[in-house]
Amino acid sequence: MVFDRKDSYTLAILVNNKSGVLMRVVALFSRRGYNIDSLSVGETEDPKTSRITIVVTGDRQIVEQIIRQVEKLVDVRKVYEMAPGRSLQRELVLVKLKSDADTRSQLTDIAEIFKAKIIDVTPVTMTMQLTGSLDKLESFLSLAEPYGIVELVRTGITALERGSRALSETDFHEEDR
Amino acid sequence: MVFDRKDSYTLAILVNNKSGVLMRVVALFSRRGYNIDSLSVGETEDPKTSRITIVVTGDRQIVEQIIRQVEKLVDVRKVYEMAPGRSLQRELVLVKLKSDADTRSQLTDIAEIFKAKIIDVTPVTMTMQLTGSLDKLESFLSLAEPYGIVELVRTGITALERGSRALSETDFHEEDR
Repeated sequence: MVFDRKDSYTLAILVNNKSGVLMRVVALFSRRGYNIDSLSVGETEDPKTSRITIVVTGDRQIVEQIIRQVEKLVDVRKVYEMAPGRSLQRELVLVKLKSDADTRSQLTDIAEIFKAKIIDVTPVTMTMQLTGSLDKLESFLSLAEPYGIVELVRTGITALERGSRALSETDFHEEDR
Repeated sequence: MVFDRKDSYTLAILVNNKSGVLMRVVALFSRRGYNIDSLSVGETEDPKTSRITIVVTGDRQIVEQIIRQVEKLVDVRKVYEMAPGRSLQRELVLVKLKSDADTRSQLTDIAEIFKAKIIDVTPVTMTMQLTGSLDKLESFLSLAEPYGIVELVRTGITALERGSRALSETDFHEEDR
């Protein structure tokens, strides 16, 4: 799940909210040797539907192959590629940083710049919550890293299409923007 | 993946960053019929390690069984239960709401109350990004829902322990708080 910015594609997979479908999707990637960079899955506006967002690395031909194969799986309704310029891609990071009396105000400044929220403080650490695009998260982490990262967890990317329509009713060749 | 607040447990699973391990974890849940409410997976502070956060519904006995079984899987290093009071649990939601000239300012007010960020606007919709605990997200969604949800996607819960130490060095019976 190493993240490589080059040649990475974000797929949104709408599935029936049934046990087993997540396994079938993940197994397909694994069996074919496709590397999943990140995966998140959660409910949607429709309780019968879950949405899996997968970031996968590969060339275009492979990604198109994946889409066709995933679409054939039981309980998979539709697979969409979320093009970067046409979609809103966000990730949530929780990070516990080393912080003492000397560095606390510096870290508070960094938090303010990036609109990170400080959610826990001890005499020796500060834990922040930050949401943003990959670029924003990486800029933040490059500034925060020198202080010492005790622990870090990321949700993986999630994404919605820009514009007014739901993905399920979007025709990619006829956009209302 | 229907979310049931009652009897749900959050597990943090530290795994080697190798292809196949995510599949083995998800397959175990699926095979045993355990329902995964949400799942997120991403990198950690250590590039050799990924962290999977799973919310699962069941009784205590079943959850303890799951933990023991997941720990036996290849490339799984450790499984931790993230107790609600002792951990920081957050989720990211992107939601596209119906919104016109009449309702735009009302939705902007709701966004401000919940510190949601407006990330896209069209003449007929408004898309927001919101991060928080489950309680916060549910309060927000109950206020926003009457305007009409066009589309909604959630990352699933991610979690860090409170306090100063990394999970991997935490002894649950000897807390430094």
